[in-house]
Amino acid sequence: MAASADEPLVITDKAEMREWSSSMRRQGRTIGLVPTMGYLHEGHLSLVREARRRGDVVVVSVYVNPGQFAPSEDLSTYPSDFEGDLRKLKAVPGGVEVVFHPHDLYDYGQRQAGDQVGGSGVNSDNVSVSCLEEKGLGHETWVRAERLEKGMCGKSRPVFFRGVATVVTKLFNIVEPDVAVFGKKDYQQWRIIRRLVRDLDFSIQVIGSEVMRDHDGLALSSRNVYLSPEEREKALSISRSLSRAKSAAEKGQVNCQNLKDSVIQAIQEAGGKIDYAEIVDQESLEVVEEIRSPVVFCVAAWFGKVRLIDNIEIDV
Amino acid sequence: MAASADEPLVITDKAEMREWSSSMRRQGRTIGLVPTMGYLHEGHLSLVREARRRGDVVVVSVYVNPGQFAPSEDLSTYPSDFEGDLRKLKAVPGGVEVVFHPHDLYDYGQRQAGDQVGGSGVNSDNVSVSCLEEKGLGHETWVRAERLEKGMCGKSRPVFFRGVATVVTKLFNIVEPDVAVFGKKDYQQWRIIRRLVRDLDFSIQVIGSEVMRDHDGLALSSRNVYLSPEEREKALSISRSLSRAKSAAEKGQVNCQNLKDSVIQAIQEAGGKIDYAEIVDQESLEVVEEIRSPVVFCVAAWFGKVRLIDNIEIDV
Repeated sequence: MAASADEPLVITDKAEMREWSSSMRRQGRTIGLVPTMGYLHEGHLSLVREARRRGDVVVVSVYVNPGQFAPSEDLSTYPSDFEGDLRKLKAVPGGVEVVFHPHDLYDYGQRQAGDQVGGSGVNSDNVSVSCLEEKGLGHETWVRAERLEKGMCGKSRPVFFRGVATVVTKLFNIVEPDVAVFGKKDYQQWRIIRRLVRDLDFSIQVIGSEVMRDHDGLALSSRNVYLSPEEREKALSISRSLSRAKSAAEKGQVNCQNLKDSVIQAIQEAGGKIDYAEIVDQESLEVVEEIRSPVVFCVAAWFGKVRLIDNIEIDV
Repeated sequence: MAASADEPLVITDKAEMREWSSSMRRQGRTIGLVPTMGYLHEGHLSLVREARRRGDVVVVSVYVNPGQFAPSEDLSTYPSDFEGDLRKLKAVPGGVEVVFHPHDLYDYGQRQAGDQVGGSGVNSDNVSVSCLEEKGLGHETWVRAERLEKGMCGKSRPVFFRGVATVVTKLFNIVEPDVAVFGKKDYQQWRIIRRLVRDLDFSIQVIGSEVMRDHDGLALSSRNVYLSPEEREKALSISRSLSRAKSAAEKGQVNCQNLKDSVIQAIQEAGGKIDYAEIVDQESLEVVEEIRSPVVFCVAAWFGKVRLIDNIEIDV
């Protein structure tokens, strides 16, 4: 069970994970957590390096969370490569102490009497259900940041942030980290996690790590692997137009409609299909008309069958 | 700051509460928590005695939670007597180590940019808001057991269980107890807390303590103080008719409609106004037609301006 200095200990059991964390706490060592869905790329590894700097020991969770996918979404085809993930984590300077890789975070052992076994009766009055509820596993407690979850990605993915906030709450309770690191590429997610930590009084410091980009500017994403070379080239329109918008804003173009129009036009001309392009307050994520305080310009667009998101902070 | 053996330490600050709990943990002592809204009666004290048996040290929280009251409800007139509460807790054999009595659990210090200050814009698309949102304090993360919260008290008090589940989550994160004790008088609440602890992977044992009754059978409640002597006498119809229904069920009367009709009739004849009378599965709280497995018969009724709840478990 003991891990060598550079070989992460793989824990699949909640109770074992808890026990490991408790033993670290008893030794007075602080724990940094990086929650991931695996298929790690350089973006994830930058979060791991950040956690390495912030905590005495580092736990990376690898878990594709059914609670944040709608039945129509890509849960079944979400890419995975656990052996590759372990190799990459081992190569991070300092390594990581634990990879928490549970089989099913929603398996509560013996089913309680009255739990739904089929999905048909679950949330019969709720149009938006996740893959978890479709499976009818009896889980029914959800954490929601009711305002922050509404706009942007929340519009086209109504169960997404409910699922993210809930699984992160679970991971916080199992791993009990002192510090948790999230990528600002998922800007809305990052703000929601920060808000839930504040509102639910978790004693955890939440760190936002900057967007990692490929040499050509494309924001790193596990889903990039599904882009054809042509689509990948066209998708550069997102980061390039966002970058131009930031420059324009810094030069005094504070009218958000104009800035949004130019980004939408650039992406559409490249063949992308816009999901949303919004300029919002960095904290409240409320749409702004004119840039008078720190904002973030967030975009989601489809290239072929791949939905990409990106954002850029504008601090004027 | 040190408390004598029988004088509870009163903590009002979250950070200080956390620090006290951490120091107990470092000493290897287990913590029992009893969350209350104060105005303690013998029912609460029975929970404290239970916590005394289960944990090495006992924390009683006294906090009237605005998040679980609707603006139309009795937040402003909810009874309180903090000095009396301290006296009663001191008189419990063994006493309690800490009374956690925060001024405002939703005060997050410096307001984040973009937080709503007035209530008008908050949840403009949400018909059900709590007193917390009316005050517009910026809190927006809520914990919900989406199925268990729907029926019974959830019907007439749509924000109630959202508020309870959320404040209990906050208290769990601040106090970090090993054991938490709740009264089964608030049966739906107790089931929801148990479910949220399971679903959110809290490492906390939740204990349900039996309903405490006055000599004449009336379930103890802080709100009983508002009953006139006449109303109090009439309100006995609740516990008496529930008790009769249990006897009838044990003698073979398994038709729930008949059992409910007799309870409703008895309460109405005494001048009570029924909010609900339901026979539900003990775990799922789903309404049953015939008693074939353990159920609980739950009633809420108004006597004058006082809404009372009571329940009785029927294990056939």
